Amino acid sequence: MKVAEIPTPALVVDVAAMTRNIQRMADFFAGGSCQIRPHFKAHKTPAIAKRQLAAGSCNGLTCATVGEAEIVAEEALTDDILIANQVVGSGKAARVAELAKRSDMKVAVDSEFGLDDLARAAQAAGVEIGVLVDVNVGLPRCGIAPGEPALALAKRVDATDGVMLRGMMGYEGHVVGIEDRAEREPRATKAMGRLLESVRLTREAGLPCEIVSAGGTGTYDITGGMEGITEVQAGSYALMDTAYAKLDIPFEQAFSVLGTVLSRPRPDQCAADCGHKACTQDHGNPEVKGVERAVVMFLSDEHATISLPEDSEIAVGDRIELWPSHIDPTINLHDVMYAVEGEDVVDIWPISARGYPEQRRR
Amino acid sequence: MKVAEIPTPALVVDVAAMTRNIQRMADFFAGGSCQIRPHFKAHKTPAIAKRQLAAGSCNGLTCATVGEAEIVAEEALTDDILIANQVVGSGKAARVAELAKRSDMKVAVDSEFGLDDLARAAQAAGVEIGVLVDVNVGLPRCGIAPGEPALALAKRVDATDGVMLRGMMGYEGHVVGIEDRAEREPRATKAMGRLLESVRLTREAGLPCEIVSAGGTGTYDITGGMEGITEVQAGSYALMDTAYAKLDIPFEQAFSVLGTVLSRPRPDQCAADCGHKACTQDHGNPEVKGVERAVVMFLSDEHATISLPEDSEIAVGDRIELWPSHIDPTINLHDVMYAVEGEDVVDIWPISARGYPEQRRR
Repeated sequence: MKVAEIPTPALVVDVAAMTRNIQRMADFFAGGSCQIRPHFKAHKTPAIAKRQLAAGSCNGLTCATVGEAEIVAEEALTDDILIANQVVGSGKAARVAELAKRSDMKVAVDSEFGLDDLARAAQAAGVEIGVLVDVNVGLPRCGIAPGEPALALAKRVDATDGVMLRGMMGYEGHVVGIEDRAEREPRATKAMGRLLESVRLTREAGLPCEIVSAGGTGTYDITGGMEGITEVQAGSYALMDTAYAKLDIPFEQAFSVLGTVLSRPRPDQCAADCGHKACTQDHGNPEVKGVERAVVMFLSDEHATISLPEDSEIAVGDRIELWPSHIDPTINLHDVMYAVEGEDVVDIWPISARGYPEQRRR
Repeated sequence: MKVAEIPTPALVVDVAAMTRNIQRMADFFAGGSCQIRPHFKAHKTPAIAKRQLAAGSCNGLTCATVGEAEIVAEEALTDDILIANQVVGSGKAARVAELAKRSDMKVAVDSEFGLDDLARAAQAAGVEIGVLVDVNVGLPRCGIAPGEPALALAKRVDATDGVMLRGMMGYEGHVVGIEDRAEREPRATKAMGRLLESVRLTREAGLPCEIVSAGGTGTYDITGGMEGITEVQAGSYALMDTAYAKLDIPFEQAFSVLGTVLSRPRPDQCAADCGHKACTQDHGNPEVKGVERAVVMFLSDEHATISLPEDSEIAVGDRIELWPSHIDPTINLHDVMYAVEGEDVVDIWPISARGYPEQRRR
């Protein structure tokens, strides 16, 4: 199959660029005390996770949902899985307990409710589930307050049957996207100080804290370079997006949304078949790749309206490529991505963990 | 199954409210010269389309993509299908021609390129494909300029083998969401004037123009009440969202995203498991249903961070419901929706046309 034959809209991966990205990240952590735990949520695609793991310097995979972890196990990508998120709600803890029968499962916990729920499910299934205490390092989302509250929860984990305290985590999501390194670096260091202080207290209390997990693509070399951090949960580096491309990090744009121009109703505009059902705009409008002065004006469900210089030669039927602002939710809209080398489609990769895979298993 | 057992995040439909919405729309058009052609793109769900068609006052279905039309045909929902969008790009015209073997297919066309592509495919398949000339009525997206350019394209359609001129369409998408009727009504009327003028010229030239298709949920009773409009392409009315709820239209919110509270790290905040991979924010953040003074602060991939009054009793493990700002892309994230009556799940409806179904057919 040729790229020109791909039905649009579609996701396209530049395999050579992705391979370089994956290798660069693996090389950065090679032989160090910190490793990478690639975040599966970014692409949900087993073919990419396999390449990340094969490149080395990896501690298994990170997942955001139980459904993703189930796909990781089903596809036998790794038996070392961290769900870097609270597992709370109907049937979820039982599903994690089921996974723990064959995988080394670790789950983030930030509340007694979440801990007790997990412990009950583990006890019922006769397994032990690893727990990382999730410490709030500044992102207003999940995570128990650092210091004494984190220590208190760690003690409770250690005292609870069915769960095993494996370490701590903290995601500096409020920092990973700061473009200027001079601002990003001190803020990441400060956020990680909260996590590392909680780790210190926990170890001083005689509790185990083997894993200290944090970071993302924007802070991989800051957080990942700090003494005491054992792994970095980066995901976007393999494919990249326009938000991360603004940072001074050595990863290439390896991913785009391929579209077809449907209409050029006036000289200064065209509409292509890649709207926000094909390419999300939660981090801003996508960029048009390789077309000078072409700017996405807005996305509707199935259209990108693009402003053009009036002398542009773009015509109905032409292909265009959009660089998304955020790969994670964009990939989540599609069922496959096309792996491309030059003009050839060399493979079609299922996005096996797209959406909530349990909805497809009834 | 009880609502309390639904794994979250998940889409929930209040069947009674949806049924009232569908009936209200059918009643409005009952016996009139204008009918409704429900837009399948809004929900992509055969179970809902069946109910819309069964309620009456319908001219078949509207689709936005070839993939949606293929699902409509496969599920035998109707044999009267309008793709209210340009069909351009690799293999698409051939797929429409294939559908035309068993369905009365109509496609919007706004360019000679698109017309010729469609005609070639129709001739190759030995079928005739209906064409509506797509007239730009003000929305900066697709559509040929009204008046003489639209007439010229209609003439060309009429003179081309393999296609049959069936009428004209124009979507006033720049108007449907205007909250104030005093502004919405004259702007819709003006937009429709452009379409109707093109229709008049076409008929005066002796060409057929049986179908005049336009409108949406926000203008159903304005556009749908104008002399000469034969059908309204509304979709959102069945389920509704917060954007359309701001308009003075008689449809109820019948749809929400069900989530579970994962964390309450501080008294004035909680995080739930319904982020923008479960509920899009392209028309703004969702609203929290039934919780006083709870406001969505931001969505991340798998989290809604919600600000709460400090005395709120919301706790980890509680269920919450979000009302999305835009149902179309939100539904497009999921594989099923749960049909609910009171505390009972009465059915689970596959969102069969989610995404680009052709990606699942390789």
